Amino acid sequence: MSSEEKYEVTYFPHGRRDFFPTGTTAMAAAEKLGVDISTVCGGKGTCGKCKVRIDEGYETLGPIKPGETKHLTKDMIEQHYRLACLIKVKNAPLKIYVPDISRVGKQRLQTEGLEVPVTPKPMVRKYFVKLPVPTLHDMRADEERILDALGDQYGLDRNRLRIDYDEIVKKYLPIKLREANWEVTAVVWGDKVMAVEAGNTSDRCYGFACDIGSTKLAGFLMDLNHGKVVAVGSRMNPQIPMGEDVLSRISFTLFGGEEAQDKLQKAVVGGINEIIDECCEKAGVKTDEIYEMTYVGNVAMQMFFLKYWPKHVAYSPYPPVVRRGVYVPTTRLGLKGHPHSNAYYLPVFGGFVGADQLACIMATQMLERDEITMDLDIGTNTEIAVGNKDLVTCDSCASGPAFEGMEIKYGIRASTGAIEKVTIDPSSLELHYRTIEDAPAVGICGSALIDIPAELLKSGLIDNKGKFVEKMTKETNRLRKSKEGMWEYVIAWSQESATGIDIPITQGDLRELQKAKAAMHTGAELMLKYRGLTEKDLDKFWLAGAFGNYIDPENARTIGMYPELPTEKYVFVGNAAGTGARMALISTEMREYAEEISRKVVYYELAVAKEFQDEYAKSNYIPHQDFNKYPLTKDLLYRLGRIDEKNKWIYPE
Amino acid sequence: MSSEEKYEVTYFPHGRRDFFPTGTTAMAAAEKLGVDISTVCGGKGTCGKCKVRIDEGYETLGPIKPGETKHLTKDMIEQHYRLACLIKVKNAPLKIYVPDISRVGKQRLQTEGLEVPVTPKPMVRKYFVKLPVPTLHDMRADEERILDALGDQYGLDRNRLRIDYDEIVKKYLPIKLREANWEVTAVVWGDKVMAVEAGNTSDRCYGFACDIGSTKLAGFLMDLNHGKVVAVGSRMNPQIPMGEDVLSRISFTLFGGEEAQDKLQKAVVGGINEIIDECCEKAGVKTDEIYEMTYVGNVAMQMFFLKYWPKHVAYSPYPPVVRRGVYVPTTRLGLKGHPHSNAYYLPVFGGFVGADQLACIMATQMLERDEITMDLDIGTNTEIAVGNKDLVTCDSCASGPAFEGMEIKYGIRASTGAIEKVTIDPSSLELHYRTIEDAPAVGICGSALIDIPAELLKSGLIDNKGKFVEKMTKETNRLRKSKEGMWEYVIAWSQESATGIDIPITQGDLRELQKAKAAMHTGAELMLKYRGLTEKDLDKFWLAGAFGNYIDPENARTIGMYPELPTEKYVFVGNAAGTGARMALISTEMREYAEEISRKVVYYELAVAKEFQDEYAKSNYIPHQDFNKYPLTKDLLYRLGRIDEKNKWIYPE
Repeated sequence: MSSEEKYEVTYFPHGRRDFFPTGTTAMAAAEKLGVDISTVCGGKGTCGKCKVRIDEGYETLGPIKPGETKHLTKDMIEQHYRLACLIKVKNAPLKIYVPDISRVGKQRLQTEGLEVPVTPKPMVRKYFVKLPVPTLHDMRADEERILDALGDQYGLDRNRLRIDYDEIVKKYLPIKLREANWEVTAVVWGDKVMAVEAGNTSDRCYGFACDIGSTKLAGFLMDLNHGKVVAVGSRMNPQIPMGEDVLSRISFTLFGGEEAQDKLQKAVVGGINEIIDECCEKAGVKTDEIYEMTYVGNVAMQMFFLKYWPKHVAYSPYPPVVRRGVYVPTTRLGLKGHPHSNAYYLPVFGGFVGADQLACIMATQMLERDEITMDLDIGTNTEIAVGNKDLVTCDSCASGPAFEGMEIKYGIRASTGAIEKVTIDPSSLELHYRTIEDAPAVGICGSALIDIPAELLKSGLIDNKGKFVEKMTKETNRLRKSKEGMWEYVIAWSQESATGIDIPITQGDLRELQKAKAAMHTGAELMLKYRGLTEKDLDKFWLAGAFGNYIDPENARTIGMYPELPTEKYVFVGNAAGTGARMALISTEMREYAEEISRKVVYYELAVAKEFQDEYAKSNYIPHQDFNKYPLTKDLLYRLGRIDEKNKWIYPE
Repeated sequence: MSSEEKYEVTYFPHGRRDFFPTGTTAMAAAEKLGVDISTVCGGKGTCGKCKVRIDEGYETLGPIKPGETKHLTKDMIEQHYRLACLIKVKNAPLKIYVPDISRVGKQRLQTEGLEVPVTPKPMVRKYFVKLPVPTLHDMRADEERILDALGDQYGLDRNRLRIDYDEIVKKYLPIKLREANWEVTAVVWGDKVMAVEAGNTSDRCYGFACDIGSTKLAGFLMDLNHGKVVAVGSRMNPQIPMGEDVLSRISFTLFGGEEAQDKLQKAVVGGINEIIDECCEKAGVKTDEIYEMTYVGNVAMQMFFLKYWPKHVAYSPYPPVVRRGVYVPTTRLGLKGHPHSNAYYLPVFGGFVGADQLACIMATQMLERDEITMDLDIGTNTEIAVGNKDLVTCDSCASGPAFEGMEIKYGIRASTGAIEKVTIDPSSLELHYRTIEDAPAVGICGSALIDIPAELLKSGLIDNKGKFVEKMTKETNRLRKSKEGMWEYVIAWSQESATGIDIPITQGDLRELQKAKAAMHTGAELMLKYRGLTEKDLDKFWLAGAFGNYIDPENARTIGMYPELPTEKYVFVGNAAGTGARMALISTEMREYAEEISRKVVYYELAVAKEFQDEYAKSNYIPHQDFNKYPLTKDLLYRLGRIDEKNKWIYPE
């Protein structure tokens, strides 16, 4: 009985396991175990998304199949990588490791990011106290009665504590105390009792952390008692109409003055307030129960959010106004939340490198490590840091919002119907795509915008200058000239799309994507050079950013978005900026650490370096003008017949 | 030659001395030396104001003259007191001590008070810094640049410092810095840079201290660099129309709610702002140059000023809302001054005993002494404290505003034309009065309102129940029945007055004054009793209050305003509340001391004591129902023929 011939398949790092008969594909086993493995083609062996590493039982699987060679690099094959849809259990148990790159994110919006264990030690704590009723023998002041109880019952330092002035005055503390029969909950923020609530509300203590991206806002409602996320939400940054990138928004304020500053500030706060409302709605929390907030974002975002005059950060030598973490009452900024709550904006570095990059460094603990690691926080403004415990340096580059779907003809945000994965079989040119929630295609979102140039390149549909290879029209009707005379390649046909029209990627789109990836690569390349390092010195390469775990790191590498490293050195940290904001929200120690990071990390302004334009020009090639910088990609393209032995592009005849 | 027969006359504590011929009166010598000695009668020996103690040369002066026996008590005579206008240099040098009670105050408004030496250690300091200009090698943030300079050049803790958020945002710090060519003055308040000013403004650093009395506001503009008063001002408390005493003002809020609270708050702040303007005008200071303020006042004043809900302090067990010192931004209260300045309201005790009494205890250092001392802070609400380093207890009593001229028919505040001193010769019934600036009489102010009942009593014009002795109409035409049928005694005749009408004191006025002094005495008496003390245990008796040094302590004692002690035990501390406010303004150490006092001093609510009504009834007599409690006054009245050996009042036949 084959039913008795079952062999254990164990998946790591999940630790899930069960017995499966010979002939079961690894993909099918994974599905039964609830292990997420990415796939676009539906198990046909063509998309190459389901790469897994076989740690035990590799010898039972038989030789690499032709479908696999197209997707696995030489180093991967050496490391026993296979495609899960093409391998089967065969008379032996298997131990299979699913790398980050093959996992399916659970949230469409990468708002969770890296989870770094942090012991909750929030700035805000709630304390329920039963107070003695005043008598002629105990005539203590109302405030004193509360502070003494906090000292007696919870060991707080009663001499340093004060009750918020407005809580006493505007909320009529004396009346509230008596109506509550002297049983109240004190909400303590640092040395301040920021609120006094009737009865015992100590189990309801929330905070809000937010990553203000130039293009996207990501918010996290957290239970501060337990340090857990209870709801997430995101929005496009409503400042976009006032300028797609930070420089155009700064120009907007330079021409518009205070009124323009107001407009930018109110716009972003409006978006944040929508997220707050949404999160509160989802989690059944009142906005008044949000007692503290933390914010991260680049320096321009800091300036717009806090209304600092942004002019000088746009001109050499680019000094910010404030480097340190800043506490501002939320009401002063127009934010929802408890009226006496405060917003903490994490420290920034210099130029445009802000609290978001600091948060990445905090989350990846770069500054604690012996080994040298590098991080790339991908966004409209991309930040780069490199170093170890001795020195971390950082830089930023204006990469533009192309990868966030802006300035791309059919670019959209990651929402229902967005094309999020695209694969093209290099031989058959068969195209597969996946949309969010499998809905009819509406447009193309960030992760697919990385896949497309990579897949086009591997399939020979574009050359390494990013230009469509016109002769390939013979091979596929997807490649065509638009009515406007521009070359384009259709990803989704009108009959599949929700809009009823074709959804192509255009030559212009490719140009935008090239510019964006070139800027990122240049920033990373120069930072390494500046430090006297090469990619070989890097132990890990942290990939952070708004689209986080959804991007395909190999495709991103293939197009030359960042230096080439062996696959296992790339670590996705998703929205690490959001992670850092959450760490700081739940732990005051993390805020001190953040201040320390902002003092220690050295900012370099590399955009002014002479080498920048040179390197940028070379980086506009895909992956790079110099193939030797991308040996793995070169090997792949060579095996696919795209380049010859002299790295020369082979055009079809 | 008599010109050669000169003898040295030395005045203490002034230390002024010169040689005078035999025959020169001590008063004339004092005038030549610029030593202030009080006189009302102009040197006729009838007013008795010029009491001095002869420390050397007493034996050369001859026997006590009849004019002197009327004014000097037995103990004073034993201590070699004489009247300066009646004694002359006679072939020997004299050393003469002028006690507090015989000195002429220099300010009409007792806004200076006790000067306790305090080393200036203000919360606000100014630091001029020249900042390095940003370069690509020095890209520090604008804030950082300033804080680093404060650290480097002045040793401030740069890691704890922050620049006020509004100073950065609303005042456009980045623009200001560049316009000032990077030379600025940082105004540091605690750990906060509250302002950054262009250029070097470090020599202009001011603060404002204010005593908020129920009836009177006294303000002091101070140079914080040197701890000196640069201007003083005062106003009636504009809250008076909303209630003359604290309880009626509290009732006003109970009926009127928040609107009434607003009205009270705006009224007092309006008055304070007028004083601020006046002081700034006098001293040539801009209101923006006032960087900090301190406030004292009783608990009701604290509540109205800060808008605490005042209801519960009016009902047993009378708990205040906040005991501790409170910092509130001045803009939050509507005060003039630098927009980022703060107001510090000193700590209070309980019931109505507030920061004004605390300030007295601070100024008199009661809590530092081995000996037991008592203080009486005379005002609409009178506070009493007694004790030494082991324990100080305090209490308050609602004495009403009679001594501040309120509810007195011709009562006015101490201003030009106010009758401030009154004497009546006990034999001739000749009356003398002195007005402020010797202007024609307008009305009667506080100090004279103490003189009048004392002088009337000594002259037999009223009895010890405070009733006019009608038969005395035979002796003086000043005593008469008014048209309304009420007895009154004319102080100034119409031809002398600025108003063209007679200025009398009425039987009703006397009743008000009796009630006020009885309340004060009862408070002091019960506090002593409560502590198991008698007046004999007191080493010093501090007299503080709005009219401060201008009251005649002996007359006040004669009418029984406070326990009877030998004259030298009374020490005037003037507006000690204002002194305390100033001490706290110029020294953060004094604020810590204030907090310590407020924790250590024990408040007793004695108004609810059973004995209160009993003692109050007895204290309504002048000086008291029990003459044995006032042996010195008894002796005086006996010698003047007002009472017999059995302490029975002798009415004229």
